[in-house]
Amino acid sequence: MSSPPLALDIEKDPRGPLFLAIAEAITRDILRGRLSPGARLPGTRSLARALGVHRNTVNAAYQELLTQGWLQAEPARGTFVARDFPEGMEGPVAVPVAAVTEEVAPLLAFTDGAPDPRMMPGKALARAFRRAVLSPAFLAGADYGDTRGAPVLRRALTSYLASDRGVVTDPGRLLITRGCQMALFLAAKAALKPGQVIAVEEPGYPLAWEAFRAAGATVRGIPVDEGGLSVAALERALDEDSRIEAVYVTPHHQYPTTVTMGAARRLRLLELVERHGVTLIEDDYDHEYRFEGRPVLPLAARASADLPLIYVGSLSKLLSPGIRLGYAMAPEPLLSAMAAARAAIDRQGDAPLEAALADLIGDGDLGRHARKARRIYRARRDVLAAALREHLGERVAFETPAGGLALWLRCEGVAAETWAARAGEAGLTLLPGSCFALQRPVPPAFRLGYAALDEARILRAVEILAGSWPGGKRDQLELG
Amino acid sequence: MSSPPLALDIEKDPRGPLFLAIAEAITRDILRGRLSPGARLPGTRSLARALGVHRNTVNAAYQELLTQGWLQAEPARGTFVARDFPEGMEGPVAVPVAAVTEEVAPLLAFTDGAPDPRMMPGKALARAFRRAVLSPAFLAGADYGDTRGAPVLRRALTSYLASDRGVVTDPGRLLITRGCQMALFLAAKAALKPGQVIAVEEPGYPLAWEAFRAAGATVRGIPVDEGGLSVAALERALDEDSRIEAVYVTPHHQYPTTVTMGAARRLRLLELVERHGVTLIEDDYDHEYRFEGRPVLPLAARASADLPLIYVGSLSKLLSPGIRLGYAMAPEPLLSAMAAARAAIDRQGDAPLEAALADLIGDGDLGRHARKARRIYRARRDVLAAALREHLGERVAFETPAGGLALWLRCEGVAAETWAARAGEAGLTLLPGSCFALQRPVPPAFRLGYAALDEARILRAVEILAGSWPGGKRDQLELG
Repeated sequence: MSSPPLALDIEKDPRGPLFLAIAEAITRDILRGRLSPGARLPGTRSLARALGVHRNTVNAAYQELLTQGWLQAEPARGTFVARDFPEGMEGPVAVPVAAVTEEVAPLLAFTDGAPDPRMMPGKALARAFRRAVLSPAFLAGADYGDTRGAPVLRRALTSYLASDRGVVTDPGRLLITRGCQMALFLAAKAALKPGQVIAVEEPGYPLAWEAFRAAGATVRGIPVDEGGLSVAALERALDEDSRIEAVYVTPHHQYPTTVTMGAARRLRLLELVERHGVTLIEDDYDHEYRFEGRPVLPLAARASADLPLIYVGSLSKLLSPGIRLGYAMAPEPLLSAMAAARAAIDRQGDAPLEAALADLIGDGDLGRHARKARRIYRARRDVLAAALREHLGERVAFETPAGGLALWLRCEGVAAETWAARAGEAGLTLLPGSCFALQRPVPPAFRLGYAALDEARILRAVEILAGSWPGGKRDQLELG
Repeated sequence: MSSPPLALDIEKDPRGPLFLAIAEAITRDILRGRLSPGARLPGTRSLARALGVHRNTVNAAYQELLTQGWLQAEPARGTFVARDFPEGMEGPVAVPVAAVTEEVAPLLAFTDGAPDPRMMPGKALARAFRRAVLSPAFLAGADYGDTRGAPVLRRALTSYLASDRGVVTDPGRLLITRGCQMALFLAAKAALKPGQVIAVEEPGYPLAWEAFRAAGATVRGIPVDEGGLSVAALERALDEDSRIEAVYVTPHHQYPTTVTMGAARRLRLLELVERHGVTLIEDDYDHEYRFEGRPVLPLAARASADLPLIYVGSLSKLLSPGIRLGYAMAPEPLLSAMAAARAAIDRQGDAPLEAALADLIGDGDLGRHARKARRIYRARRDVLAAALREHLGERVAFETPAGGLALWLRCEGVAAETWAARAGEAGLTLLPGSCFALQRPVPPAFRLGYAALDEARILRAVEILAGSWPGGKRDQLELG
């Protein structure tokens, strides 16, 4: 029995992908009650015909809604409206016209390590935001915000850092920022005079270099090996260039190679930094996404309290991909210098958002979501690792990362850039080593951010990757 | 008949004013149902005794809740829980522990022109934010945000600017920023090389000078007269200092003197700027708060499209005092330079907030609230003007401002700083001329931001001001 065709109200000129406009239209109909829980949707072929679009487009729309929990698939029976609303929807809510971007989002991509927005506490965030915006104290004008960040958030973060990773601090040593980017810019502004040099890992994190340069600093690369930043190479650089006044490291999950710096090297790094009197900027991104081994404490947890160490973290991946919230911890006079620099470019953060985040930390929402996300991300990591071994075998080499949302895939004997271009033509976007190189020879590798892809998409992506391998005889490698 | 004492759950160690902690506790009880609509509250004396606080503190808490609509006063009968929830509260909502600041908020203050948070669409904002955070497109990762600001917001702003003030542009010429502060910083980064000079009004807006200096520019003051920036003085400065490459003006409501630049002078300013090939930065803050006269079109509405004019506006006062959202409109190559500078310090704005704001503009919520606020602010302006005339007479001089949320009060013959210090001791905070001076002699005046004060508070503030006048014989001026 075929169901009547849907009279979907699709945006006339969607600027984003069409499949998302169709998905939005279906959810609108569900929320308005035009499609009831348990109702059967038309088959993809007939809906495609009715809408005048390709069947793949309808299929992509259905897939998206299945993943989000709006629809349920019953094998051999069809696709149905879910009987329970997905996590986050309590009942009829007016759905806006699709908030589309002007660029078409790629359908399949390994990011640089972005999280899955469905793993985030959207409903709790919206609830906490509402409370904050309507709170009597806020309406009375007592809590418009603070350059250093809402005190309630700095207090919540203080507890969080202590219990989550042994970093003992107090609210007076914290500065809440607009994400990691701003924290790094302010750190460089505080630690360096224009023209001074900051040593960075190479390959490394180009957005950090942008922030440092915007602060007037010069960036100098220090090689990375299988243990992270080479402290021996750093020592040689410090000895020969007296303009180096700061060092930027990602010791927990080196960006981009994902390696973790071991305990012995961490100690040598701290001693070196102290001996030369330079500022250390530790970026502990993805700390929460650790999958195995003992927890690794940050450098900030073991450094002495007056060492000029600026510890930077981000909450964006825990809260929402579209929201930038980060923090920096630093001793004086660095922190006050950072706060003053912040005020000059941005008076303060958005107080209701900061208060909402404090609520989510205090209520345990953030922790719960992080644990759930961790389980799912670890599973996806394993799916990726297995698929790479199966479909690419000895064409690539990698270590399964102990944490973080990306895998560093080395490709011996072929140029990663060439491979990436061919994969792009086949519908898969990914980031080759040139994206992370400062000067030295480009690493022959990819950084595969897998977290936002479900299992089916990971498998499909690896298939495309395998099928577009530029080495040897291509026809030997059939798509699996 | 006395009502039973309230068993209020007041935060043990509130870091903010105690009266607000008490107010928060009362609203919590209302929302939890412990206090029913229509229930009579204890008298201030008995509640004060029960809580062990001063009666004034309880009175201040009741006053706050009366103003916000939680309570209703019935003369000779007492104070009661309102039967309708105030605008913004639909039903039981968990109220967080008071989001208090670490500084005690002054009880009575003229700000520099801050709005009244109760005039803002908090409920609509919360609703729109929730929709944005839970939208399928957002969850699918299609709309994480954009360095230039969510396209949906840039489109909404384009319509808004055209219909509201005759500024014709397109989304590609707009950059959404974290409020005016960031817009001004980015404008200076784009328009000036380090060491170049920007001419500013004097007296003027010190936070703008901070932003310009953070961008590496030097600030030079140009005198302001009763018609705004003196274009004759600007011309002399441009002729003598070739390092001046930009000019910053607030022509609609000069900050801090509130005067509006007339049509003839605007034309001369545009000609001068074009002749010298410098960039003009027009800050049109408080455009929406115009009370009389014909609408004044911005310079940006009449300048030719390729003139290097950066038009800056803020949405913070319309949306929420704790949220920083602003925008800049500029031609190329300025806009791309500003966008690149933005990305280096802050990848992007918070996409759900930007989408929510676009909704509020598109749904007409923002316009409705602005119109309602305008009516209330104009009434408060009139109350202030009348009270100043009545209580201070010839001790002061002012023109009733045609728009904006502040009044410029000149005080002949006494030092404004002395007067402000004495008013502060008497419980009133206000901003004397020294707050706005760059170098020249400090203007003998105050900038009285009145918008966040209700009528009773305005009257009380003027009484305190009158009572603390430092000139002549003090005992001649009794508190009214």
